[in-house]
Amino acid sequence: MTKPPVTIRDVARLAGVSVGTVSKALNGYGQLREQTRDAVRNAAERLGFRPNDLAQSLLRKRSFTVGLISTDSYGRFSIPVLEGIESALEPTRLSVFLCRADDPVRERRHVDSLLAKRVDGIIVTGRRTDRRSPVDLGGASVPVVYAFAQVADPRALCLLPDDRGGARLAVDHLIGLGRRRIAHVTGPVDFEAVRKRRQGFRDALAAAGLRGRAGHVLTGAWSEAFGREAAQYLAGLRPAIDAIFCGSDQIARGVIDSLRETGVRVPDDVAVVGFDNWDVIAAATRPPITTVDMNLHELGRQAGLRLLDMIDGPRPSGVECLPCRLVVRQSCGAATGASADILPEHHDGAYAA
Amino acid sequence: MTKPPVTIRDVARLAGVSVGTVSKALNGYGQLREQTRDAVRNAAERLGFRPNDLAQSLLRKRSFTVGLISTDSYGRFSIPVLEGIESALEPTRLSVFLCRADDPVRERRHVDSLLAKRVDGIIVTGRRTDRRSPVDLGGASVPVVYAFAQVADPRALCLLPDDRGGARLAVDHLIGLGRRRIAHVTGPVDFEAVRKRRQGFRDALAAAGLRGRAGHVLTGAWSEAFGREAAQYLAGLRPAIDAIFCGSDQIARGVIDSLRETGVRVPDDVAVVGFDNWDVIAAATRPPITTVDMNLHELGRQAGLRLLDMIDGPRPSGVECLPCRLVVRQSCGAATGASADILPEHHDGAYAA
Repeated sequence: MTKPPVTIRDVARLAGVSVGTVSKALNGYGQLREQTRDAVRNAAERLGFRPNDLAQSLLRKRSFTVGLISTDSYGRFSIPVLEGIESALEPTRLSVFLCRADDPVRERRHVDSLLAKRVDGIIVTGRRTDRRSPVDLGGASVPVVYAFAQVADPRALCLLPDDRGGARLAVDHLIGLGRRRIAHVTGPVDFEAVRKRRQGFRDALAAAGLRGRAGHVLTGAWSEAFGREAAQYLAGLRPAIDAIFCGSDQIARGVIDSLRETGVRVPDDVAVVGFDNWDVIAAATRPPITTVDMNLHELGRQAGLRLLDMIDGPRPSGVECLPCRLVVRQSCGAATGASADILPEHHDGAYAA
Repeated sequence: MTKPPVTIRDVARLAGVSVGTVSKALNGYGQLREQTRDAVRNAAERLGFRPNDLAQSLLRKRSFTVGLISTDSYGRFSIPVLEGIESALEPTRLSVFLCRADDPVRERRHVDSLLAKRVDGIIVTGRRTDRRSPVDLGGASVPVVYAFAQVADPRALCLLPDDRGGARLAVDHLIGLGRRRIAHVTGPVDFEAVRKRRQGFRDALAAAGLRGRAGHVLTGAWSEAFGREAAQYLAGLRPAIDAIFCGSDQIARGVIDSLRETGVRVPDDVAVVGFDNWDVIAAATRPPITTVDMNLHELGRQAGLRLLDMIDGPRPSGVECLPCRLVVRQSCGAATGASADILPEHHDGAYAA
């Protein structure tokens, strides 16, 4: 069924030159008259000849490809990370091999396949930021970047969102709006992100001289149902709380729906801030949720740029946390019109965790 | 920085044989003593030698790669399609090149790059099923499959969810539960999916001898806010409606929230069915939404399998619609416990649109 692809010989025949001359003309090396070079290019164009990347890769001992291993099912976290990686690699000649690995066996098989293809580098991304095992390169030395993923290996480069700083940003904002009795409703404590966000919450209270109360931090499922349950409990406390910082937008949505149905006004009586900026949830809630955005697109883009540097250059290591931003909508009481972004102060790019 | 990869020459040296013998031993051709073959394999394993896929591809004139062009930003529709494609290709030796193309210029560049890499085939997926332009292969003849995407070219193979049949399934179900005055709240009519689902709604009413009323079909934005607005209007109609079939789960969520807040009981007074089975919405709604699932994972898997067939065989064409299923939760009034699936009757795989 398949028409055989046009070869360098076809181009040589049409241009009336040797195969070697075609190669020189199309690859831009050697000494040729401009007229000859043009004749070859015209012939290649007329025939629709595409220089065979495979052959070029063999010649240059580079494949101009990058492997992308995702341990997420392309969920809402890895989507923006993937987009960011692509935006960094697109201007280069590099193509991306996509590998989804739900388990170590499949990951190992993918890595072997990528190494056999002589990829120039590998990016690993995940669905949560807790430490995972490093990919096993079996002695090969291609550069690897972990993006929204973390390993214990001190030689590895890992890029993570600054969960602690993001939480600090949210709670500082609530305090700046005059809120003083602030609760925190968040996900399961076995997530590192939960522990870091809780630390950021405490940092902000401490910096403002406010006392955190034990009963004001509630952990449970990443769900609207848990948000509703937690809000019912918090609404009964006296003295009354005046703000809730939530560990996710789904929790924040449950909190807000429940408060509204109980007759508690958001943001007038209780201000609420979420985390994720998952806009299908955050923008659809009544009122729309002010929330922390992890800047995952930018995190992916940085991962791509760092990998490009590492292919030809030195290989940095360590865990770097990239800044989050606060997207202000209506639930915090600061804005009633369009949304606005708040960035952390004194944060010029990445810093170590 | 990079340690040079182990070559076939290193293996030959360690095994004490010629390069040609290594090639025969590792590629399983030619006549060799079992002892020699074992010696080569052991040497290759000790050195961590990976047969160079690039060289093998050149030799076999196949690249064992497939290009995947997604015009969606990996949204919730293309994610399950991508997963399905991967599940079909994974057991083969094929790797997937990922290309995201938001615009025709970028798509063109990606296609050129894929053709230069001599991919064995291309799958195109999108974010909505309306007709788009075919990918421009510039005369090359690699096989192409459109998955959750459609082109006017009669030579193309396009796989789509059966929106009309899915809607029919949902409304038949409501009618089977005794509902008679059924409204339809759906998205913008410039979506082909909206027009097909509306047709399925009308098919079901007609088959049951029920009369559709003009005021019972409302089209608007794909949003919870539109669902709430439409529900307010429908709740005021007399005689009262007893069911609403919604064109998306987001619309269904808005409808259900609004009815509940107005004091209308779901499903007792009004049964509601959604479309998409987007579980973060459908399962979190009170009550959880009975909804149509487009089986996008299976659609992607079929696209992968069809492409594999087309690489070595004939190339079928046409638009094929794959069956949807109904996921029964609580909002329709049929179930109060665990969810159950309902498949269309007399539907053995694919059928033409």
